Amino acid sequence: MSTGASEEQYTIGVDYGTLSGRAVVVRVSDGAELGSAVHPYPHAVIDERLPGSGRELPPDWALQVPEDYREVLRVAVPAAVAAAGIDPSAVIGVATDFTACTMVPTLADGTPLCELDDLRDRPHAYVKLWKHHAAQPHADRINRLAADRDEAWLPRYGGLISSEWEFAKGLQLFEEDREVYDRMARWVEAADWIVWQLCGSYVRNACSAGYKGILQDGAYPTTDFLEALAPGFGGFVDDKLAHPIGELGAAAGRLTAEAAAWTGLPEGIAVAVGNVDAHVTAPAAQAVEPGQMVAIMGTSTCHVMSADVLQDVPGMCGVVDGGIIACRWGYEAGQSGVGDIFGWFVDNAVPASYVAAAEAAGESVHEHLTRLAAQQGIGEHGLVALDWHSGNRSVLVDHELSGLVVGLTLATRPEDVYRALLEATAFGTRVIVEAFRDSGVPVEEFVVAGGLAKNALLMQIYADVTRLPLSIIDSEQGPALGSAIHAAVAAGAYSDVPTAAKAMGKVRKAVYVPDEARAQAYDRLFAEYRELHDHFGRGVSAMRRLKAIRRDAVAARHAKEEGNQR
Amino acid sequence: MSTGASEEQYTIGVDYGTLSGRAVVVRVSDGAELGSAVHPYPHAVIDERLPGSGRELPPDWALQVPEDYREVLRVAVPAAVAAAGIDPSAVIGVATDFTACTMVPTLADGTPLCELDDLRDRPHAYVKLWKHHAAQPHADRINRLAADRDEAWLPRYGGLISSEWEFAKGLQLFEEDREVYDRMARWVEAADWIVWQLCGSYVRNACSAGYKGILQDGAYPTTDFLEALAPGFGGFVDDKLAHPIGELGAAAGRLTAEAAAWTGLPEGIAVAVGNVDAHVTAPAAQAVEPGQMVAIMGTSTCHVMSADVLQDVPGMCGVVDGGIIACRWGYEAGQSGVGDIFGWFVDNAVPASYVAAAEAAGESVHEHLTRLAAQQGIGEHGLVALDWHSGNRSVLVDHELSGLVVGLTLATRPEDVYRALLEATAFGTRVIVEAFRDSGVPVEEFVVAGGLAKNALLMQIYADVTRLPLSIIDSEQGPALGSAIHAAVAAGAYSDVPTAAKAMGKVRKAVYVPDEARAQAYDRLFAEYRELHDHFGRGVSAMRRLKAIRRDAVAARHAKEEGNQR
Repeated sequence: MSTGASEEQYTIGVDYGTLSGRAVVVRVSDGAELGSAVHPYPHAVIDERLPGSGRELPPDWALQVPEDYREVLRVAVPAAVAAAGIDPSAVIGVATDFTACTMVPTLADGTPLCELDDLRDRPHAYVKLWKHHAAQPHADRINRLAADRDEAWLPRYGGLISSEWEFAKGLQLFEEDREVYDRMARWVEAADWIVWQLCGSYVRNACSAGYKGILQDGAYPTTDFLEALAPGFGGFVDDKLAHPIGELGAAAGRLTAEAAAWTGLPEGIAVAVGNVDAHVTAPAAQAVEPGQMVAIMGTSTCHVMSADVLQDVPGMCGVVDGGIIACRWGYEAGQSGVGDIFGWFVDNAVPASYVAAAEAAGESVHEHLTRLAAQQGIGEHGLVALDWHSGNRSVLVDHELSGLVVGLTLATRPEDVYRALLEATAFGTRVIVEAFRDSGVPVEEFVVAGGLAKNALLMQIYADVTRLPLSIIDSEQGPALGSAIHAAVAAGAYSDVPTAAKAMGKVRKAVYVPDEARAQAYDRLFAEYRELHDHFGRGVSAMRRLKAIRRDAVAARHAKEEGNQR
Repeated sequence: MSTGASEEQYTIGVDYGTLSGRAVVVRVSDGAELGSAVHPYPHAVIDERLPGSGRELPPDWALQVPEDYREVLRVAVPAAVAAAGIDPSAVIGVATDFTACTMVPTLADGTPLCELDDLRDRPHAYVKLWKHHAAQPHADRINRLAADRDEAWLPRYGGLISSEWEFAKGLQLFEEDREVYDRMARWVEAADWIVWQLCGSYVRNACSAGYKGILQDGAYPTTDFLEALAPGFGGFVDDKLAHPIGELGAAAGRLTAEAAAWTGLPEGIAVAVGNVDAHVTAPAAQAVEPGQMVAIMGTSTCHVMSADVLQDVPGMCGVVDGGIIACRWGYEAGQSGVGDIFGWFVDNAVPASYVAAAEAAGESVHEHLTRLAAQQGIGEHGLVALDWHSGNRSVLVDHELSGLVVGLTLATRPEDVYRALLEATAFGTRVIVEAFRDSGVPVEEFVVAGGLAKNALLMQIYADVTRLPLSIIDSEQGPALGSAIHAAVAAGAYSDVPTAAKAMGKVRKAVYVPDEARAQAYDRLFAEYRELHDHFGRGVSAMRRLKAIRRDAVAARHAKEEGNQR
């Protein structure tokens, strides 16, 4: 694209995470990441009290303040440009990606309702972050009704929609604060709201509209369905949600003078259609072809993969036309707990002697346990675990499931259980890979992004357990790089995202390859995992009953404590 | 019995444990424990190398040196008498109890073979301690053959005899060192060998002969059976084992001049028939009536109970005529892991912050976890565990089983798992109690001895889970007190053990009573335990397969390491 150093062009990718926004300056010709800056949101996640009044929130709420997102544009973008040492006039485009589903209720002009003086003290006027989980009863009702009515869109989401998504959160708002609902002109994904701030126009991105907004084959759930769900809710789609869809990689508009002033970037440059953090990572890892499953592995794992075929994969999170790359079916699946299970174990189940030994060896506790675990042969610990400490997303879609360890003896050591947990998440991935394959969507390569890629033992386990070559993204800031790629396409520097990904994406191919002897050794353990998986996940409801017992016990204690206080 | 302080009489009870012997001086009139002394065995447990030559032992061996037992008589008995401040001439009897099955190979005069110069370097010439587990293959063969031949004695042992017992250890000796086997005139329980040392005559006690020696209805396994097991082994019973049986509480003989010199006790006083540490505890806790189940709760739990009826209880350890109290059927059952599971958890799964908090509060880690666990309602942790970390003795009789925890979440804390483990052992006890009841041997009271009785939370859990009143022995040295009671009977101070137990035994009755509301709350958790118990213990063989995988993996690593060394 570029013909000389003096004519180099750049794009900016901005990745909006749960606690901060990160801006990265990327060279259009080769994807070199030249500078970056991170700005934490001043209000972080609001889950106890509203700012200002200090009004208390109910359990399971998680809100954010939209002004924090604008502040990232004003602070992190100029800082990244300064860190890169480039001339801002050489920047040809900007793109963003966001957590999802994160929803902003706005006026018709995009003003968030929480910025109105008379609504500042109304929880429902704020941004509902992806991990706002107070709409579970609403999601349950949506799922029940959709199953009863055999709604055609339900199989596209593996049979169950999430409490995190647009309709569940929207129904909660409708039923719990009708006044705020009525004042709301638009129910906007934050991914699209930030683009609206940059270019002055509202374009709904195909990714979140499909995965989180139940847009399938050009249609949303019907008025009839919504009215059956809650009388008066029938107009939700037409009144608040429906809006033209922008293809991923297209330009949503041009940078406004106001946004140019915020960011220090040239007015009029391309602003790409919004995107979701996991999905935007695929091109950053050059993994947009059918068969390339990208796993963003952190506290949890999100799997995204493009394909030319449309299939119902049981227990997937969703399949969306153009959901990852335009003109391909984008599949998503997920494991609700991965790195956070390892973290929980280190925090709650590792004795002081191990912490001291790790410190003496100059290792983190994770590194120490990993090194000890790597010294044993496959199966030597005699353990199998189920990795359901946060429930199971794919393929069982059941948040009432829980974790399990079997095979414990008096000889079981912390590194044994740690390794069993690593393996359990790999077995969980294999179940997902097999579900795709069995549904006619083959998986040929496993491409890893996210913090867990650093753990070589874990990566080798995944390669051996899945019998897939394992490639690793060659960037520490995959989502922001992916956004920068989309910005380059939106600016016309490349014809499409796959072409841009080839030039700008970065991956180390087949860093780990499966070993057949080890794979066979894991087959024996996987057979045990599979048996436990089907017994507890599909057979008996022991885990569901234990959660019910737990809820009853907590409620009884609270009732007693309240009684004592009276 | 006694009519004044000046005429008080005393007996000595000596409890031979795994690592030391304890002598206690007890007043015959009321069971007051006036003084005690403990002497550790100089050779402790020999499980790596023989003394002297340093010859290496194979895995799973556990030997002892008989001279260590004599030393307890020479050191601990006089020390206890001195501590009591009594006139030794007022001692009217002495009795001992021992670990079992602990076997001494001897000449016809009782000389241990390991004391012969030419056999000092032969492992099989030493005492095989109860926890010598190298005879498992021999036990397996005995069990298979007995099942095939439908031997009548097999149901008396819940369907399986243990590798720890006389026949398995004897068969190992026969097959692995024929010369030592041929030199051996007697295969003697240490419980009886020490009595032989005290009174100069060999009397086989009814307890270990029945529980460990497969003596049922006056007969041992037949010559035919033994010959089928291993050609040439047919004479084992007649040549090495069979010997007159002494009733518990009877006198085996009188203290010899030599033993009087060792102990400082009067020559000619009564020496009681030998006994086993668990069983001898029942009269010490005044618990010799039908329906009184005594649980000796330490690293593991042993349950003993007398009854007037003979029934086959599935999975019990054994039922023996006069095995606890003469003229009653003595039942034994066991849980192979209890306190050692709690200990394993504290050593391997409790983070530094808890250890520090315990220290700051002046508590042990066990006390700290117990206090935290006691603050929650029943079921609030959402967990159920299986207490099979050392396998399961009663009622499944399967050492290939292993531990399990289900219900783990990212909110699970160490005190939650700790409480789940406490509860799991209580559920294991309930399974045993129900097996007795369902077989027509009712249990009416649960009487606890052993170190775990100190844990009030654990005791209340047992009372609630079993719906039994829970009494606690009022002595810190139950077995030694039990022996002293038997010494008093052997000396003629009481007509029988139950009468002596009433005067000398000590118990706090119904210290913990079940609460029906709590019992019902536990019923829900017990239903989950029972389902897991039957699924993993009687249904799938997942745990057995995991142990096989583990053994294969360890063997493969050893083979590889040896290959590398060449």
